[in-house]
Amino acid sequence: MRLRVALAQLNQTVGDVDGNADRLIAAYGGAQRAGCDLVAFPELAITGYPPEDLVLREGFVADGRAALERVAARTGETVAVVGFVDEEPSAAGAPARRYNAAAVCRNGKVEAVYRKHALPNYDVFDERRTFTPGDAHVVVDVRGVPVAVSVCEDVWIPGGPVVAQARLGARLNVNVNGSPYHRGKGEARRALVADRAREAGCPIAYVNQVGGQDELVFDGGSFVVDAAGTVRASAPQFAEDVLIVDLDFDAGAPGGLLVEGPRAPEMSDLEQVRSALVVGTRDYVRKNGFTDVVLGLSGGVDSALVAAIAVEALGAQRVHAVSMPSRYSSEGSRTDAADLAKRLGVDLRTVSIEPAFGAYLDMLAPSMPVPPSGTGSAPAADLTPENLQSRVRGAILMALSNARGWMVLTTGNKSETAVGYFTLYGDSVGGYAVIKDLFKTTVYDLCRHLNAVAGREVIPRAILEKPPSAELRPDQRDDQSLPPYDVLDPILARYVEDDRTVREIVAEGHDAALVARIARLVDANEYKRRQGAPGVRVTHKAFGKDRRLPITNRYRG
Amino acid sequence: MRLRVALAQLNQTVGDVDGNADRLIAAYGGAQRAGCDLVAFPELAITGYPPEDLVLREGFVADGRAALERVAARTGETVAVVGFVDEEPSAAGAPARRYNAAAVCRNGKVEAVYRKHALPNYDVFDERRTFTPGDAHVVVDVRGVPVAVSVCEDVWIPGGPVVAQARLGARLNVNVNGSPYHRGKGEARRALVADRAREAGCPIAYVNQVGGQDELVFDGGSFVVDAAGTVRASAPQFAEDVLIVDLDFDAGAPGGLLVEGPRAPEMSDLEQVRSALVVGTRDYVRKNGFTDVVLGLSGGVDSALVAAIAVEALGAQRVHAVSMPSRYSSEGSRTDAADLAKRLGVDLRTVSIEPAFGAYLDMLAPSMPVPPSGTGSAPAADLTPENLQSRVRGAILMALSNARGWMVLTTGNKSETAVGYFTLYGDSVGGYAVIKDLFKTTVYDLCRHLNAVAGREVIPRAILEKPPSAELRPDQRDDQSLPPYDVLDPILARYVEDDRTVREIVAEGHDAALVARIARLVDANEYKRRQGAPGVRVTHKAFGKDRRLPITNRYRG
Repeated sequence: MRLRVALAQLNQTVGDVDGNADRLIAAYGGAQRAGCDLVAFPELAITGYPPEDLVLREGFVADGRAALERVAARTGETVAVVGFVDEEPSAAGAPARRYNAAAVCRNGKVEAVYRKHALPNYDVFDERRTFTPGDAHVVVDVRGVPVAVSVCEDVWIPGGPVVAQARLGARLNVNVNGSPYHRGKGEARRALVADRAREAGCPIAYVNQVGGQDELVFDGGSFVVDAAGTVRASAPQFAEDVLIVDLDFDAGAPGGLLVEGPRAPEMSDLEQVRSALVVGTRDYVRKNGFTDVVLGLSGGVDSALVAAIAVEALGAQRVHAVSMPSRYSSEGSRTDAADLAKRLGVDLRTVSIEPAFGAYLDMLAPSMPVPPSGTGSAPAADLTPENLQSRVRGAILMALSNARGWMVLTTGNKSETAVGYFTLYGDSVGGYAVIKDLFKTTVYDLCRHLNAVAGREVIPRAILEKPPSAELRPDQRDDQSLPPYDVLDPILARYVEDDRTVREIVAEGHDAALVARIARLVDANEYKRRQGAPGVRVTHKAFGKDRRLPITNRYRG
Repeated sequence: MRLRVALAQLNQTVGDVDGNADRLIAAYGGAQRAGCDLVAFPELAITGYPPEDLVLREGFVADGRAALERVAARTGETVAVVGFVDEEPSAAGAPARRYNAAAVCRNGKVEAVYRKHALPNYDVFDERRTFTPGDAHVVVDVRGVPVAVSVCEDVWIPGGPVVAQARLGARLNVNVNGSPYHRGKGEARRALVADRAREAGCPIAYVNQVGGQDELVFDGGSFVVDAAGTVRASAPQFAEDVLIVDLDFDAGAPGGLLVEGPRAPEMSDLEQVRSALVVGTRDYVRKNGFTDVVLGLSGGVDSALVAAIAVEALGAQRVHAVSMPSRYSSEGSRTDAADLAKRLGVDLRTVSIEPAFGAYLDMLAPSMPVPPSGTGSAPAADLTPENLQSRVRGAILMALSNARGWMVLTTGNKSETAVGYFTLYGDSVGGYAVIKDLFKTTVYDLCRHLNAVAGREVIPRAILEKPPSAELRPDQRDDQSLPPYDVLDPILARYVEDDRTVREIVAEGHDAALVARIARLVDANEYKRRQGAPGVRVTHKAFGKDRRLPITNRYRG
């Protein structure tokens, strides 16, 4: 028995039910012409994933169902597996039950519907909020081969539906996914699916969506494993692709399956991070109807990296940079910003913040408890002029955004976002925070990676080598307020990403007073983060819907 | 058989494990001295509710368990029912299971633990995210009376644990709650509990927490219903209280129970809304370590209401008002703001925005596609000067906050929040958005209610009678950009709060083009709302964690 299977990793858009259906029909046609027996699309391919609370609207579910029927009507002998929201009316006025489902479509009809059993409700996932778990199995005959369908999380469950379907006779499991990227996810995913294939004694065809959706980036990377858990064919990450494989179930090959199909080269970890930032930024900007972006270039490393990513995502002519010097800006910062803009080929305008900053100082002088000096050793009240400078810069960027229709890119990294080392409504303004999930040490790693791959200084060495500074007062340096980033970041990783308590982190060998101070800063700045822009998730725990802590929170453990 | 039962509706603080335990011990001592046989505290009284992702930290759960043991060690014959996070280690390195639990404490020990069965995972609730459902029953003997324990949502389930426990012989069900307020919730709650009592044939003692936690306000209002579903005793809403009732199970009374205890007077709907805003604001400010607040007084109705609420919540001397006139401010607005400040007894300072506004216009002139005129019929580019004015005001308020340590109160209402009729980083700045869940029509209703209750013009009639205007250009009025609020608000209620689609709302008789335009505005401004301050939830669907829609969203149905 032989099958030709297509795994279509498409970049759908949430809510674009009709456009998504059109893309499914186009890809189906291509697979049909390529002689495929089956084509599998990602999880909830009709609605885009994750549709969040759109699923609570009856009309949205009905529109999705109609789009599914339109796709099904176009099918012939080639089977299409299409993710959609299935609905079952409840008795007695109770709310309808909705399911994260996959339809098996053939010869113009929806032939069977599989409803996802395992609904993830952790990390960034809220599937129990809108969906009811299914409990039935679907195994259909495709040209003599019994093929089962499962959805995403189902394949993660030992003894779960994939195993049960193999026991019902399935010779292949088609697992459709909306599995977002984070660092290390690809390896974890392949290991997990391999485990399940071995447990089930059944090959698995894993198809994943690709593209950005708000904070999430889906990395594609669809693949086929045989019953021994060996990856036999794979699609690239971070790009649309249709992986076409020929499966021979009777070849007596090791793993119970002979697979002919392409193998995508592996991407390095940092190359994956870079691609996630590029795809996330491009899709957020374009899917929200923007073409151009604007950002402030301080001469520092964060804005340099964001500018470089933006140029990759959108093209240099779509990226607009602004230098906004003050009395405290060093000559080096100005020339570094100009050098960077030139290397990237982006336009750079200069708007001094002094006129507005000076006006504010005069306007506010009567209301200040002590006259703001703009200098000094930073008692709390003295942060006012620093924050004002940052807010003037934010207002300038937003004015350019309003006047020109450019989306502002925010340049804050995860280290400063964590400890609140930024000005709310100042350097935090913007539509998308490209590197919000990268610790400062990772920002440096990624800049060096970009330079190494390019074989030239995309980001000038001067920017990478000078000590980080906000330049909001004379001779300011980050390490006057914060520990060095190579000390700070590991503590933040344990506290923020791994949910360790202060006691536990101290027990691992870190300085007790320092850990307590950092944890306090993280907690005390929850209110600032809550008003931040969304940005690309690249770790297993990003700020955003991944980490839901109360603002009002007196826990100090 | 007679029991004296105390329902202690306390105002706990999330994360304040030790402080919460101290408050439990103090209230327990009081109930003990009052001769009570049982005292019931609210859901998760040890951790505060909702603890959100704090529950994912092992150390937090362990600290809570230690605090529970400390409370239990203080108990004698009087039973204490204490909500806490229970943990059960899992086999083989799997993550521990955690339960939303209630401990039955007596004679120095934890005697039994009930684990909540029904974990709400809708609206503002995410309990499936951190908790595993329980499935066991707890019925303990209290001076000869079999008493069952259940937690919150359990009582909402027909045929659920409350009914099962009655069948096991329970003569009383103690139901401990963290049930947040929204309009109409009290009636719904009492009707539901009455249904369950009738179904179970068993009286129910319902205890609820009180106080604000970020966006939620818990309204207390604890009560006892007999087996016929009749409310026999009740505590006030929106205030700490210990409701002590004597229950006689053998009196042959109607409803199977004679209850002697106080009845709190009913509060009107608008009085509940007012109380929710006052309690929510007071607790957010104080629990986050602030004493004073600052807000801009425009002379309009929104800031007037917020100022009045703030004065109730914190006292007039803790509220600081700022008038920030521009070239477009009417004389009436200035005098109305001054009149209001005088009536409320709050200090008012005036900071003209002109110097900074003028500086921005000069600084940005070379970057504008057309020179900003500050007037005109509002093509997109012309909004730049309007937004700049608003952002100057935001920066002034934030500078006062930085310099003086005052929390900024945001004054936006739900109508303008919905359609994006506000400036991001401008009038939206602040720590807490007091009226963010009140449509403009409700703002007027509540102002009139405040005046009626006070028997005088707390909010001057001039403010209530003039047409709403942002005063960002000459002769501007809200109804130049938006439909009248009595047309807008009902459409928003259906779209935002009831999840109706455009088609459905049009079918109810609204203008098709208008509904489509409003829905588009609501969707297109999701990104602005996402960066907004938290504020008191008073409806069944507030913006915030109650309504989780994607920013990137092409659905237009």
